[in-house]
Amino acid sequence: MKTLDAVLSRINAKRLWDCHEEIARFGMTAKGGVNRQALSDEEIDARRRLLEWATEIGANAYTDDVGNFFIRLEGRISDAAPVLLGSHIDSQPTGGKYDGIYGVLAGLEVLRAVKEAGVTPNRPIEVVAWMNEEGSRFAPGMMGSAVFCGARQLKDVVSVVDAKGIGVADELERVAKAFPDVTHRRLGFPVHCYFEAHIEQGPVLEVESKVIGVVTGIQGKRTYSVDVKGEEGHAGTTPQSKRRDALTVAAGLVVTMNEAFRDEADITRFTVGRFTVSPNAPSVIPGLVSFSIDLRHPDAQILSTHANTIPYFCRIAKGHCEVKCDPLVNDAPIAFPQEMQCQIAEAADHLGFSSMSLLSAAGHDAKFLATICPSGMIFIPCKDGISHNEAESVIPEHVAAGAAVLCEVAYRQAGVE
Amino acid sequence: MKTLDAVLSRINAKRLWDCHEEIARFGMTAKGGVNRQALSDEEIDARRRLLEWATEIGANAYTDDVGNFFIRLEGRISDAAPVLLGSHIDSQPTGGKYDGIYGVLAGLEVLRAVKEAGVTPNRPIEVVAWMNEEGSRFAPGMMGSAVFCGARQLKDVVSVVDAKGIGVADELERVAKAFPDVTHRRLGFPVHCYFEAHIEQGPVLEVESKVIGVVTGIQGKRTYSVDVKGEEGHAGTTPQSKRRDALTVAAGLVVTMNEAFRDEADITRFTVGRFTVSPNAPSVIPGLVSFSIDLRHPDAQILSTHANTIPYFCRIAKGHCEVKCDPLVNDAPIAFPQEMQCQIAEAADHLGFSSMSLLSAAGHDAKFLATICPSGMIFIPCKDGISHNEAESVIPEHVAAGAAVLCEVAYRQAGVE
Repeated sequence: MKTLDAVLSRINAKRLWDCHEEIARFGMTAKGGVNRQALSDEEIDARRRLLEWATEIGANAYTDDVGNFFIRLEGRISDAAPVLLGSHIDSQPTGGKYDGIYGVLAGLEVLRAVKEAGVTPNRPIEVVAWMNEEGSRFAPGMMGSAVFCGARQLKDVVSVVDAKGIGVADELERVAKAFPDVTHRRLGFPVHCYFEAHIEQGPVLEVESKVIGVVTGIQGKRTYSVDVKGEEGHAGTTPQSKRRDALTVAAGLVVTMNEAFRDEADITRFTVGRFTVSPNAPSVIPGLVSFSIDLRHPDAQILSTHANTIPYFCRIAKGHCEVKCDPLVNDAPIAFPQEMQCQIAEAADHLGFSSMSLLSAAGHDAKFLATICPSGMIFIPCKDGISHNEAESVIPEHVAAGAAVLCEVAYRQAGVE
Repeated sequence: MKTLDAVLSRINAKRLWDCHEEIARFGMTAKGGVNRQALSDEEIDARRRLLEWATEIGANAYTDDVGNFFIRLEGRISDAAPVLLGSHIDSQPTGGKYDGIYGVLAGLEVLRAVKEAGVTPNRPIEVVAWMNEEGSRFAPGMMGSAVFCGARQLKDVVSVVDAKGIGVADELERVAKAFPDVTHRRLGFPVHCYFEAHIEQGPVLEVESKVIGVVTGIQGKRTYSVDVKGEEGHAGTTPQSKRRDALTVAAGLVVTMNEAFRDEADITRFTVGRFTVSPNAPSVIPGLVSFSIDLRHPDAQILSTHANTIPYFCRIAKGHCEVKCDPLVNDAPIAFPQEMQCQIAEAADHLGFSSMSLLSAAGHDAKFLATICPSGMIFIPCKDGISHNEAESVIPEHVAAGAAVLCEVAYRQAGVE
């Protein structure tokens, strides 16, 4: 593939870095992070900039019923299933500048490199920004990829509302109106293969001094919503023995489960991230606490064993309160095909980047894509493993390295005559 | 005092009950409780109705720099220090229909009875609604009585802002504009004596089958604001050992202190009522938790001993987080004068109501009034001791009984020729 080197030579590290800086302006926070939640004004602004960049290289943009956003560079064989590259644009409320958007901009850089090299591969190459990966505004996340791959029903997703009562359906309509010229496509289509570039969001690559992470799979995840119902009462008059204090019970559950799920190898991940107290007044005994549980483990058996103890903890710790525990997400661990892992490792070798295999501790849209086509993920290091945090940080060399690896695997899959 | 019986005969149980029902409409919640927080629209509406009732009996209304609201029935000696009766109109966010407002409406009923009996005592009798007793919107509470009695500075109070950033100063101006015809008086004035009628907010009178509680004093109270600062991180990727999870530390503190402050006699009251998690997203490790501590005990020495351990708990439980603990309220226990207690007990006897002495577990505006004039409190039973709760409940007979006792002690103190 003589043309491969021509394409790779067009990967422009500075341009790719500058695009990150520019997109980060949409939703930038005072601390230099990003608040660009799904289907928000900030995300619309980011999509608009992407659309302009797509137009510059003659790529067409498409959307679908669940608000996924595609940029397509045509191949020689227009009806061939495309090579799909992507990730997401939305962020956590106090998110960083690279989580998600990196996979989209690295994909765009591949399209630019192919275009500039003046070559046309057999298959179309498409870049996708999946709708609502983060799930912070509309829970749970990965709505776009899950619906695209048939793992969730469109009707279940569009009825979700955010904390202000605004629904996915209304926001999808608003986004569609903002882009009247973007062609609406039917939901789901055959995909030749899928590659997702992403920051590691963990410390492994940095500690091991590797540039490229070849992702072997994604650990399993179970999530729950827990409601502890007690009774409001006066802080000064209600004797301790008569209280039905929802906060004390909920706090006890957090402490107990944190201890119970601690393992020596430090593999289990247990997080209570959302924790809301009502009525939340200093002199009123809390009558209600609602909190989230996020439990992850790479081993399906261990994950299941841990998860099965959650209702047990809720039962024994409830005191004088009522505890309701509703399961939400139940994602088994997945493994990416060896063949896809090999292609990524070989591309890293070919390009002279050090690499290693590692498991993804975070969930990604690739989890759903893996159920419909051969999929793979490319990680680059991030500083101190910090992510979902405004302090998220990466270096330009790693950003460019990941994009080059993505370019090589995508171009090889797209095929040339 | 022949005229006393004439006045007492005018205490109208039905009218007093109906007024409670009518005022409860201002801020009524779906569950039949009240959300009428300090200086809110709902409180303005309630003040307006009170003003109409005052006008009907020829009483004048006054306000002052801190937004206290007075209704004055003139006495024969216009420059004599008035007998002051009252409590507060504001409620907790999910409060009941009787906490606070009962003391104001019972006072109004006294004025009505005196007026209808066609007698004029020597001293003026005033009814007061103190500004922001509850402290749920603007913390800490009892702002109006504290400033009136010189325990706090006006300038410190007006600079307090609510959760939305709205300040006391702005809201005071808004309330003043809503009542252009209410005369503005200078802050603070000599008070002959002060009586506050209130629901018990505890179970003692009900358990002991007594109608009137003669309040001996108010237990001491210490409050704190605690900030636990950790670091936000990704729920899936950050190993448990690397986390600086603010929620786990804060939950541990709640659990530990709840256990530490439990005493066999069940006298200590320890409450964490406000507990706010940031960024409060399911897949983000909480970076910050802020919570309130409310600690009460009738014994000054024990209260102080308990309070002194709080910084210690914060220090040992902080893990990888930073814990900041700021003291707010430091109110020593107080005792009402024996003479005032006797007057209340004798009035209950005279009127044929069973009574008993008891300590107030809740704080009340009378705490500050007790520092400037002889003060006393009259309790009536409330169902199951439930208060600061929409389910708060009392019976009409008790409401009327408390008002009659208030009427007798007030009228005796006001004096007749």
